[in-house]
Amino acid sequence: MNAVTQDAARLLDTAARAAREAAWRIARAPRPAKDAALRAAAAALRARQAEILAANAADLEAAAGLTPAFRDRLTLTPARLEAMARGLEEVADLPDPVGRVLAEWTRPNGLLIRRVAQPIGVIGMIFESRPNVTADAAALCLKSGNAVILRGGSESTRSAAAIHACLLEGLRAAGLPEAAIQVAPTADRAFVGAMLRAAGLIDLIIPRGGKGLVTRVMEEARVPVLAHAEGLCHTYIHAAADPAMARSILANAKMRRTGICGATETLLIDAAIAPSLLPVLIADLRGLGCDFRAEARARAIVPDLPPATEQDFATEWLDAVLSVKVVDGVEEALAHIRRYGSEHTEAIVTQDEAAARAFLDGLDSAVGMWNASTQFCDGGEFGFGAEIGIATGRLHTRGPVGLEQLCTYRYHVIGTGQTRP
Amino acid sequence: MNAVTQDAARLLDTAARAAREAAWRIARAPRPAKDAALRAAAAALRARQAEILAANAADLEAAAGLTPAFRDRLTLTPARLEAMARGLEEVADLPDPVGRVLAEWTRPNGLLIRRVAQPIGVIGMIFESRPNVTADAAALCLKSGNAVILRGGSESTRSAAAIHACLLEGLRAAGLPEAAIQVAPTADRAFVGAMLRAAGLIDLIIPRGGKGLVTRVMEEARVPVLAHAEGLCHTYIHAAADPAMARSILANAKMRRTGICGATETLLIDAAIAPSLLPVLIADLRGLGCDFRAEARARAIVPDLPPATEQDFATEWLDAVLSVKVVDGVEEALAHIRRYGSEHTEAIVTQDEAAARAFLDGLDSAVGMWNASTQFCDGGEFGFGAEIGIATGRLHTRGPVGLEQLCTYRYHVIGTGQTRP
Repeated sequence: MNAVTQDAARLLDTAARAAREAAWRIARAPRPAKDAALRAAAAALRARQAEILAANAADLEAAAGLTPAFRDRLTLTPARLEAMARGLEEVADLPDPVGRVLAEWTRPNGLLIRRVAQPIGVIGMIFESRPNVTADAAALCLKSGNAVILRGGSESTRSAAAIHACLLEGLRAAGLPEAAIQVAPTADRAFVGAMLRAAGLIDLIIPRGGKGLVTRVMEEARVPVLAHAEGLCHTYIHAAADPAMARSILANAKMRRTGICGATETLLIDAAIAPSLLPVLIADLRGLGCDFRAEARARAIVPDLPPATEQDFATEWLDAVLSVKVVDGVEEALAHIRRYGSEHTEAIVTQDEAAARAFLDGLDSAVGMWNASTQFCDGGEFGFGAEIGIATGRLHTRGPVGLEQLCTYRYHVIGTGQTRP
Repeated sequence: MNAVTQDAARLLDTAARAAREAAWRIARAPRPAKDAALRAAAAALRARQAEILAANAADLEAAAGLTPAFRDRLTLTPARLEAMARGLEEVADLPDPVGRVLAEWTRPNGLLIRRVAQPIGVIGMIFESRPNVTADAAALCLKSGNAVILRGGSESTRSAAAIHACLLEGLRAAGLPEAAIQVAPTADRAFVGAMLRAAGLIDLIIPRGGKGLVTRVMEEARVPVLAHAEGLCHTYIHAAADPAMARSILANAKMRRTGICGATETLLIDAAIAPSLLPVLIADLRGLGCDFRAEARARAIVPDLPPATEQDFATEWLDAVLSVKVVDGVEEALAHIRRYGSEHTEAIVTQDEAAARAFLDGLDSAVGMWNASTQFCDGGEFGFGAEIGIATGRLHTRGPVGLEQLCTYRYHVIGTGQTRP
């Protein structure tokens, strides 16, 4: 629980009001100005490399007692800074999502109705101590015409401030309002609480981080949240799967990267194909360093698999571990996914189109895949160019969140003097 | 504040779990089944007219002490019942919004990505004692493939139950699950509190009613809310307006119906045209029974106008009252709207296209109109066939909410064995 102090509420109010003014302006900024700001910020990241690395070294020194994984995420290097700068330039190269005509029709009375893409307004980003998110999120918000208030983990304060200085340099170079990209003016956690309660001042909160952070934000927020929660993804190998395809897809879906939300956590395999295929799949994955938790029917086929508890099937491993279950066809696979899944991404491997259709139609998940790796659930792989996360709720947008998903819309109605009967 | 009791939480949990099961089924119901259910429900409303009117009479008797306006909204008549039945049939005639392919593209690696419209899931409707909403909302939710839990005002309990019986008859006739349309099993207000806290069980809350109800729901909800809040709409008469068009649009925008959210509450008129046009506009509206609150520059032109306070410009009259202000051009009109408006609907009347563009581009409102009455902000007028309300937030959807807006989407990704590099 992030209690709100009067000080935090006052700081947030000042920041958010400035952001709202800036949002109105950058919502209407022409593409060249936004792109110029991004390119100038990239140049500043390169020019100020020494300064940023020094700030990061100070953050790392203060975080000396934390875990190696935590310190790794906090660490900046010349290569990581260069990747960050290139990221800004890549966003500049993407098309402008604002002002697109999404639909247009004429009514019998002659009214022309046009639905036009528009920025959301003021976005609050809450994330952990990963300095690169400061630049990535700011770039996506700016290009989509939104103002943003960034609140990263308190251990990254100095690094974030140094990166923020480069982003401000970009805004100034392009003549855009500096309040369009703000970092929290205090590391006080009460500021997070104030952000979460800023209905009417902040239009959308995007939490990015572990399940604990996202759950806390969802519970406390009085502002709409675009949550990137759990990815408990399934790969279902149907009786009519091509065995070679099943092997390569499963190895990729589980082991390409185990820590991302699109990684497969559970294998479902049809009883008809399991006796011949499951031992091969297990051997493949063992060769890649994967461990297993298997229910009884799977262990009857590969006896040395460790047994699974029910809780294992509800676990997002984010690690080289795979839950394994033998099922009797599409309906049982769907029933398992409905019970244990997180509505993120599920894949079926099959040569049988009717089975694939039944599987895809039976899912409620944001993404259903047929003969492809669940790890394709990614903004870049979807062609969005860049993403701010994967939305796991059901409202506004689902799946990868790129520039278009950071927009809402409004209507323009063009008449010639019509009045309503 | 709607405190949650254990009893209410238990009742809600049972209702919502049944709704979720039903939602999965009706999300996949073919159009003929949904339409058959709606038509059978309409037939039942006609067949059970006497029974429904008797239930309504009992509600009215218990509500004897309430205001005439309240009792009018609660009252059912044979004509109102027939309109309700026809409403169900009209929704049956509308196209099915589920399964539409919203976008489709192929990636360089051959993956086909398809964005498909899908129901949201379980919707909670919270509304006042208007029995017709029971049928209207249920029809829109059913046709869009969503399950719904309806919680109307406690004074309409008997009427709602009688109407609900007809809706269930429709579901049974079509072989659809009865849990797809539920009414709150208790009039206890704690049940509303339980609905608002049912994250994970209810996907979306739609409040429909006065500002007090909507504000309370927005403050308490831990579930996403599609709010239909205030409509403080402006009509701006620009210096280059056609005077005859300005007169007919303003009279319609203010006086066609004063109690709807798309009614104009404030007139902004350019100083260049006000001396000649404002007296005519005032005379027109006075002839229709309108009263005024005017600032100094307007009163300098029409001296007998009552003076406006600042609060008047922040007031959604929902009545035959118009706030009046003289401005110096588009920028001042926009500044006034940004300060006092509710981002619902604003109109400009002008023959000058550049001024119209500047006005429309400068708005953040859900709907901007050029040479048309603000009262056109309506699902029927937009061609949606029917609406459940006007969304005034910035996320998911804005403006009139019809069948398409009651959907979300998901992705189908179709491959041929692709793995992610």
